[in-house]
Amino acid sequence: MATTILDIAKHAGVSSATVSRVINTSGYVGNETRRKVEQAIRELNYAPNKHAQLLRTGETKNFGIISTQFNETAVARINSFIAEAHTAGYTTTLFITNGDRKREREAFDLLRAKELDGIFLVYRANDWDVLEKYLEDGPIVTLHNVDRPEIPSVFIDHYEGNRLALSYAWNTGCRRILNVYGTPAGLNTARRIKAYTDFCASKDLTPYPSGPFLRILSPDDVDGVVDWIEEQPLRPDAVIAHSDNIAALLVSRLKKRGYKVPDDLSIIGFDNLFVSDVMNMTTVDYGIEEQGRNACRSLLKQLDKKSEDLTPLTFRLIKRGTTKDS
Amino acid sequence: MATTILDIAKHAGVSSATVSRVINTSGYVGNETRRKVEQAIRELNYAPNKHAQLLRTGETKNFGIISTQFNETAVARINSFIAEAHTAGYTTTLFITNGDRKREREAFDLLRAKELDGIFLVYRANDWDVLEKYLEDGPIVTLHNVDRPEIPSVFIDHYEGNRLALSYAWNTGCRRILNVYGTPAGLNTARRIKAYTDFCASKDLTPYPSGPFLRILSPDDVDGVVDWIEEQPLRPDAVIAHSDNIAALLVSRLKKRGYKVPDDLSIIGFDNLFVSDVMNMTTVDYGIEEQGRNACRSLLKQLDKKSEDLTPLTFRLIKRGTTKDS
Repeated sequence: MATTILDIAKHAGVSSATVSRVINTSGYVGNETRRKVEQAIRELNYAPNKHAQLLRTGETKNFGIISTQFNETAVARINSFIAEAHTAGYTTTLFITNGDRKREREAFDLLRAKELDGIFLVYRANDWDVLEKYLEDGPIVTLHNVDRPEIPSVFIDHYEGNRLALSYAWNTGCRRILNVYGTPAGLNTARRIKAYTDFCASKDLTPYPSGPFLRILSPDDVDGVVDWIEEQPLRPDAVIAHSDNIAALLVSRLKKRGYKVPDDLSIIGFDNLFVSDVMNMTTVDYGIEEQGRNACRSLLKQLDKKSEDLTPLTFRLIKRGTTKDS
Repeated sequence: MATTILDIAKHAGVSSATVSRVINTSGYVGNETRRKVEQAIRELNYAPNKHAQLLRTGETKNFGIISTQFNETAVARINSFIAEAHTAGYTTTLFITNGDRKREREAFDLLRAKELDGIFLVYRANDWDVLEKYLEDGPIVTLHNVDRPEIPSVFIDHYEGNRLALSYAWNTGCRRILNVYGTPAGLNTARRIKAYTDFCASKDLTPYPSGPFLRILSPDDVDGVVDWIEEQPLRPDAVIAHSDNIAALLVSRLKKRGYKVPDDLSIIGFDNLFVSDVMNMTTVDYGIEEQGRNACRSLLKQLDKKSEDLTPLTFRLIKRGTTKDS
């Protein structure tokens, strides 16, 4: 059984109202009485009920992190967000929704219920029409490239990142460049597609269609792409992936079928994660961890708390072994 | 401003005590009055303060997850723990301590303060002498192989896992087998070392010392190991790593220095993570995700909640391309 205020009062020989005044540092308590209560608290190893404390301050010093997935790309942002929040004195509650819209709304309801001081929305399940009503309940920041200025976002424009990858593929002699995409729910995919079609138009290349290469997220999806590549009379000579994990699967599966990377095909990833380092994969870097820190800084600023300024994020191509020399 | 009980009372034309009785479903409220209050709650989009609710039930339906690190090995367990907890109706609060002992104790204090219904301790910073006093505050389960039966654990005995890797290296012709280890804080490393020395004795091999190969955790640590390997007149012909990430770094760094894996050296990982799949690395599998689910099941059982039984975990060697054929 947990120690209660009544136990403390009995042990110290005072009323529970007196114990309450000592714990809450409110109202008058004589020095001698205060000492007796504090000693009883120590002797009984008492921890005041935090929920009762929070009712008074109105702050939980706790940020929510919401994501549909818990993959390495999400984890890299979450990790740096947690570190930045910790420095600012905030704990974090992480909600993985697995794409469950009700579960996501329940997490947002905790902002309304003052259970959370702010929310970092990594990957969302609901439409913005559903989520935007929570803006009035507390600070929210998202990773999504959302075309509503009222929703704070630390997105980066994938248009620039994809253009960088496309230009590098072109400069290393590739002329049949295939792009594979993630979920089309956010604007990131739309911006990657626009970069692709613009680039193909500018170089007079015939673009591959985007439809069959949307939602490439799992090993099975990648196997499907590799099947498709093998069926082409004239195969693509480069594949640009929307994440390093998908690029890693592409390299792995192509090698298993006897293709040489980059001699037969170049592969370019995105995010500059651990896997791209150990697999020596060319990728696009933009400071994924800085993006997580920026998300935390945005929440702190919305709460008028002390915070560093947000770091501007820029793209950089990391040349490694899955592309030819330019 | 958030809607309060007073706003509801004013809107419904009743007293705040009446609104409170409706929200708490306690005390008598006439049907007509109840309907008016419920309508006001809907119209004002009111969410009751969850802290106040929790004061009554004593349950938070929230599990804490504590880890010193947020690496892929931790993440694999955390991911499956979260999924299992979600199924049982629990949210999770994830605390990454970065090895900060005070921070870890603060997280355990939340169990004492009834902010958490239970704790899954993934990687710990404090000694058990410090942590064991929290056992009286609520259910705890750990991943550590701890020699105190009073602390529930879902550990697996790394002795068996390492012996499996050692036997396979031996069966593929390796005779100079190096083991590299993680943190020596827990018993896992001690068990891996014992498996190594027992195996070397049984095969009449001269074991490498373990001291220089403890705490191999970062890319720099792996570079140090590769430097050491290069300096040996007679190089090891196999390296067994305590995790897939370290094995991946070993493969990557050895290849960069011109070594062929497995022709020059065999590499065996541990955990069967994504990276071992895409890098086609031989590894030891034991159902790392099932281990996370078991941790959640243990907490549920300690709370007398409905739960599946814990799955027995067994080791399996996954033969891939970083070892020779036996």
